Amino acid sequence: MTNVTQIGALDAWGGDKGKHFIEKEIGAQFAGISVNTTEPGGESPYWHSHARLEEIYIVIDGRGEIVLDDEVVPLEAGTVVRAAPGVMHALRCLPDSPTALRWLCVRSAGMALADVGRDAELDKDRPYPWNA
Amino acid sequence: MTNVTQIGALDAWGGDKGKHFIEKEIGAQFAGISVNTTEPGGESPYWHSHARLEEIYIVIDGRGEIVLDDEVVPLEAGTVVRAAPGVMHALRCLPDSPTALRWLCVRSAGMALADVGRDAELDKDRPYPWNA
Repeated sequence: MTNVTQIGALDAWGGDKGKHFIEKEIGAQFAGISVNTTEPGGESPYWHSHARLEEIYIVIDGRGEIVLDDEVVPLEAGTVVRAAPGVMHALRCLPDSPTALRWLCVRSAGMALADVGRDAELDKDRPYPWNA
Repeated sequence: MTNVTQIGALDAWGGDKGKHFIEKEIGAQFAGISVNTTEPGGESPYWHSHARLEEIYIVIDGRGEIVLDDEVVPLEAGTVVRAAPGVMHALRCLPDSPTALRWLCVRSAGMALADVGRDAELDKDRPYPWNA
């Protein structure tokens, strides 16, 4: 199934490299998603920013911090942070974090959601296969 | 901090309504993200598709299934599924799921990542604030 992949249990996120890009596995066209584990004391290899991509960091587990230009934001389970285009940023997992930092990064660009507007089509009459 | 929000611990994802849209809270421009809980036996209120938006479902916990037109895909922790534009879909949490289905949905459209290309700028020399 070309639109389906597995990122595994939380304690295996990112595999041996700690980073797993899944967009090609699911045939994604507009959004890129990486699945990541940063061990306690670990940090980004370098600062980076993007000219056009917006990046959204979603923390599922662990404690850390992310720096956006000059602003340091604490990270814990449930924290979501946007790095706007042009914002230099980097993150780390605190050395005394009880678990590794498990996080998703979503990348996208180009068409503002506000310009997409309401594009949904609903079918309120079609039965679901599990009820048929 | 306008680019930061909290989605809370897994067992509270989505709040009372089971669905929490976070894109405005973080000032996201290109990607929409919802944080969702579907209780065992619960299902989508109706089928839907999008004309232009690609939707990516990321399952963090629970067991369920999603239907993409006529294809039913099982869902468990770590399953990621893309619903392409135009694909009618709906999901449910299995009645005997050991936990509620906790899932993220990422929406985006407009500029293919492949067309964005490499737009990253790296700074390998700047120290991190936590090391300064």
